[in-house]
Amino acid sequence: MGKGGKSHEETKSGEDENMAAWLVGLNTLKIQPFKLPPLGPHDARVRMKAVGICGSDVHYLKTMRCADFVVKEPMVIGHECAGIIEEVGSEVKNLVPGDRVALEPGISCWRCDLCKDGRYNLCPEMKFFATPPVHGSLAHQVVHPADLCFKLPDNVSLEEGAMCEPLSVGVHACRRANIGPETNVLVMGAGPIGLVTMMAARAFGAPRIVIVDVDDNRLSVAKNLGADGIVKVSTNMQDVAEEVERICKAMGGGVDVSFDCAGFNKTMSTALSATCAGGRVCLVGMGHHEMTVPLTPAAARYLF
Amino acid sequence: MGKGGKSHEETKSGEDENMAAWLVGLNTLKIQPFKLPPLGPHDARVRMKAVGICGSDVHYLKTMRCADFVVKEPMVIGHECAGIIEEVGSEVKNLVPGDRVALEPGISCWRCDLCKDGRYNLCPEMKFFATPPVHGSLAHQVVHPADLCFKLPDNVSLEEGAMCEPLSVGVHACRRANIGPETNVLVMGAGPIGLVTMMAARAFGAPRIVIVDVDDNRLSVAKNLGADGIVKVSTNMQDVAEEVERICKAMGGGVDVSFDCAGFNKTMSTALSATCAGGRVCLVGMGHHEMTVPLTPAAARYLF
Amino acid sequence: MGKGGKSHEETKSGEDENMAAWLVGLNTLKIQPFKLPPLGPHDARVRMKAVGICGSDVHYLKTMRCADFVVKEPMVIGHECAGIIEEVGSEVKNLVPGDRVALEPGISCWRCDLCKDGRYNLCPEMKFFATPPVHGSLAHQVVHPADLCFKLPDNVSLEEGAMCEPLSVGVHACRRANIGPETNVLVMGAGPIGLVTMMAARAFGAPRIVIVDVDDNRLSVAKNLGADGIVKVSTNMQDVAEEVERICKAMGGGVDVSFDCAGFNKTMSTALSATCAGGRVCLVGMGHHEMTVPLTPAAARYLF
Amino acid sequence: MGKGGKSHEETKSGEDENMAAWLVGLNTLKIQPFKLPPLGPHDARVRMKAVGICGSDVHYLKTMRCADFVVKEPMVIGHECAGIIEEVGSEVKNLVPGDRVALEPGISCWRCDLCKDGRYNLCPEMKFFATPPVHGSLAHQVVHPADLCFKLPDNVSLEEGAMCEPLSVGVHACRRANIGPETNVLVMGAGPIGLVTMMAARAFGAPRIVIVDVDDNRLSVAKNLGADGIVKVSTNMQDVAEEVERICKAMGGGVDVSFDCAGFNKTMSTALSATCAGGRVCLVGMGHHEMTVPLTPAAARYLF
Repeated sequence: MGKGGKSHEETKSGEDENMAAWLVGLNTLKIQPFKLPPLGPHDARVRMKAVGICGSDVHYLKTMRCADFVVKEPMVIGHECAGIIEEVGSEVKNLVPGDRVALEPGISCWRCDLCKDGRYNLCPEMKFFATPPVHGSLAHQVVHPADLCFKLPDNVSLEEGAMCEPLSVGVHACRRANIGPETNVLVMGAGPIGLVTMMAARAFGAPRIVIVDVDDNRLSVAKNLGADGIVKVSTNMQDVAEEVERICKAMGGGVDVSFDCAGFNKTMSTALSATCAGGRVCLVGMGHHEMTVPLTPAAARYLF
Repeated sequence: MGKGGKSHEETKSGEDENMAAWLVGLNTLKIQPFKLPPLGPHDARVRMKAVGICGSDVHYLKTMRCADFVVKEPMVIGHECAGIIEEVGSEVKNLVPGDRVALEPGISCWRCDLCKDGRYNLCPEMKFFATPPVHGSLAHQVVHPADLCFKLPDNVSLEEGAMCEPLSVGVHACRRANIGPETNVLVMGAGPIGLVTMMAARAFGAPRIVIVDVDDNRLSVAKNLGADGIVKVSTNMQDVAEEVERICKAMGGGVDVSFDCAGFNKTMSTALSATCAGGRVCLVGMGHHEMTVPLTPAAARYLF
Repeated sequence: MGKGGKSHEETKSGEDENMAAWLVGLNTLKIQPFKLPPLGPHDARVRMKAVGICGSDVHYLKTMRCADFVVKEPMVIGHECAGIIEEVGSEVKNLVPGDRVALEPGISCWRCDLCKDGRYNLCPEMKFFATPPVHGSLAHQVVHPADLCFKLPDNVSLEEGAMCEPLSVGVHACRRANIGPETNVLVMGAGPIGLVTMMAARAFGAPRIVIVDVDDNRLSVAKNLGADGIVKVSTNMQDVAEEVERICKAMGGGVDVSFDCAGFNKTMSTALSATCAGGRVCLVGMGHHEMTVPLTPAAARYLF
Repeated sequence: MGKGGKSHEETKSGEDENMAAWLVGLNTLKIQPFKLPPLGPHDARVRMKAVGICGSDVHYLKTMRCADFVVKEPMVIGHECAGIIEEVGSEVKNLVPGDRVALEPGISCWRCDLCKDGRYNLCPEMKFFATPPVHGSLAHQVVHPADLCFKLPDNVSLEEGAMCEPLSVGVHACRRANIGPETNVLVMGAGPIGLVTMMAARAFGAPRIVIVDVDDNRLSVAKNLGADGIVKVSTNMQDVAEEVERICKAMGGGVDVSFDCAGFNKTMSTALSATCAGGRVCLVGMGHHEMTVPLTPAAARYLF
């Protein structure tokens, strides 16, 4: 960059070749050059500093597919990410080189009814990092719309910044289910999505949160992260009634909102049975497509 | 009634014995005396003029039960009703003898959180006509809270008034699903509840309504009552995809809201598959408890 | 256009000079050439067929300003418009030449929080036809984003199509105030905006609508367009109580929602006084900036 | 009480005469006997332990009136209260003698549309402690509906319990204005209602709260109770623009929701001016009826 330019590191962009982690075949990742697109007037070039590994990345690695998406050509993986701004386009006003940012991984069309209605997460034209045929962000650098790069506060690390993407799943769930200081919350599943949903519910004011899992270690992590109650359950459908009883006891009152962060017939049955009259059950987890009634495809409509 | 009283027909209440239709055993109704409770200060005494026969009445007649409710002692049946005010309690200001009224059949407690929150239909203490052990309204006269007796406009007949109760199911569904002039509506099932839901959706402004059933006659009735499109379907789960295609074609656009007025795995699957991203599916029908995921019990939480 | 192109009229765009109505000074309009921008991949070129004259157009003509917007350089006026598609950009899929369309006049940024939240009407970067320094649409042709050109049904004329823009004010008001078959509506002001609000409320299911104005002719038009009741009022603040009484009598019941489509201290006072407990008052009209409490600037936040 | 009764203190209710603080004339309170009504089946008899003094109590004492309510006959004052259950009616299941409870001071009719709709605070038949002609609760004992007596957790004192009533004003305001972790909040007025609104907003998750007052002491209290920013203002309408600037600076970002806990032309003007496009302004304070546009009467519709 010449003088007056906005580049953070004088010599990087032109000289070094940009490298990325390419999924080139079953269980096969390769570090290969990844050519960046030109920087548009509303874009930012970001040097990646932290990229999480999502369950979907693992699915793609192990099976070359996830849900109905199939990797047909080599694809850069990764979508939970944060980095440092290197350069911004001529029209970008909210960022400068050096800013630490978390990236929102999906680029929607802003022309369809859903985008205009504020539900751009459902945009049928969505271009989402590491969802074939769109490349991901496990790369030295990426070019991304600047309005999808969010400046991190000083007290948030880049590693934490990379976790904004899964965290946003929990925040979105809490918005949809209208969590507040008057809603006791049940979370089915203490995996990463269950945990971020639990933490988001706390930030929304939920006074009491009980979390459920089949795994003692996960429950222990949940407890350390602030769960008010933990309940170990089985995968056996016959146990629903007894488990609901234990859940209600752990809650010490009614369940106002249940989040199913697993997505199985059993977890949904438990959530529906445990939630009080007039309560809300919010399906978050994607499960294994085994649900008899197709709630999962409905919840992930734009994917299928 | 002495002078100054509010009784409509001077001599009736004391002289005639009040009779009602009692369910006394399997398939056995008897017309027997039905003693009225004393008229409280906020009550009205109503001479019944029209009482509908609901599916639940038929269930009780044929099996002595409906859902988890069991008729253990003789019970007066009937709950869809309208009549003429005979007498009102000392504190009643909104009604006078001679008024034609439709009756809301459920008396809730007004002390629980759900009542206070405006969701009194979910009150766990609900006393509902003809739901054991509460007697129904298929009687010459009943005593009922005056605030649950709604004066009919002059252009509404007493027979139509008796249909306010099933109609209110459709109105409630449209409120819950936020129907308006921007929501295209799919109704699964063209039975009485499907039809009132369809008519309520029209009154809420729905521009286009498609209704689905397995029965040609029902579809023909729906068409005559204003359905924009009708689609005949099977009970075979394998047909869902093809039927969804026909539904969308009949709609000539996306389905914004689906009402499942049947309540089977298949109808719910069709509703979930046909509804657009960001749309709403509202379960109204009670089905046969066969749903793998217990949506029906959740939707009828106070009953079970 | 060569073969394969999408132009509707083979020879027009290149040969004829595009003309428009320019506001060049106080009370001075001139028909002058108006150079079209290049057609982007998501744009449409539209031959204008009908353009309404809004109060704002008149303000600009008479005073060279409207609210805080000042016309400093010659500007093409007009923003309520409909026309026929002449040519579409390479990425446009929803329109073809020959389509009859109504145009949404404001282009928002789709990058700010308000746009992303579905409230793009409040975008601070809004580029709105005939709002300085943005040119309007009273021209032979304009180039506009294709997603802001809405195909008209066959039974809607181009003149009616031009009225979609003011109509949308009424639709937006009814959405905001949650109008339905259970809301009796009061409209303060029977000017164009009051009338479209009344008609929109009817389409949303409002069972009873009373409209108020100082002018007999306007009230007569409102009556012909379907008002259930009309009330003539004064501009004198002392008359509020008596007028509220007449309004409630005309309504024959409580006012659930009031739309102030005028925006004066008096109309707002009347609306606030006439509306029942728990009701809603929605400020639609812009008035004369005379309100003591700055409700108008708040309601039009992006403009000021 | 005989054996089997539920009385907490065997001998109290019959022997001691119940005394209360009666407002008998301007600036004149007298401790006089206060006869308790009979205990109904759904009632509780409560021994008062803490009663707050509200601004309305002071108004009545000093002027024999508050808003449009006039004290025409001697009246027991007080309505912010907590105590210990002495005895409960035969149908009461949620309380036993000895329970520590806070009392909700208003008894609504549960028969009007507003009660049925969950907005019982707006009931036109409301009987509210110390609102003429209804007696208050500054007495040794009162009889009150048991469902309006809320059991206090062990960690809440009776003095804190008496503050539940003003606190509920803040909670209601936050519900109405939909406060959450994504809403920065401005509170106009650091009096008791401003402070409880601030604390409620924090419990609802508000990330940043700025509070405004004319009084340094009040601002200092607010700061100690957790305000993120405090702004001292004048009562001069000319200062609005400059004060808005300081408010926005203290917020370090946009104001999403403003609560006007004062209710003057100036505080409402400041709130309207400071709040961002698409934000919400919620009028909580009752002010001095000086508002040109009658927002205060509208906000307190059931009172006037």
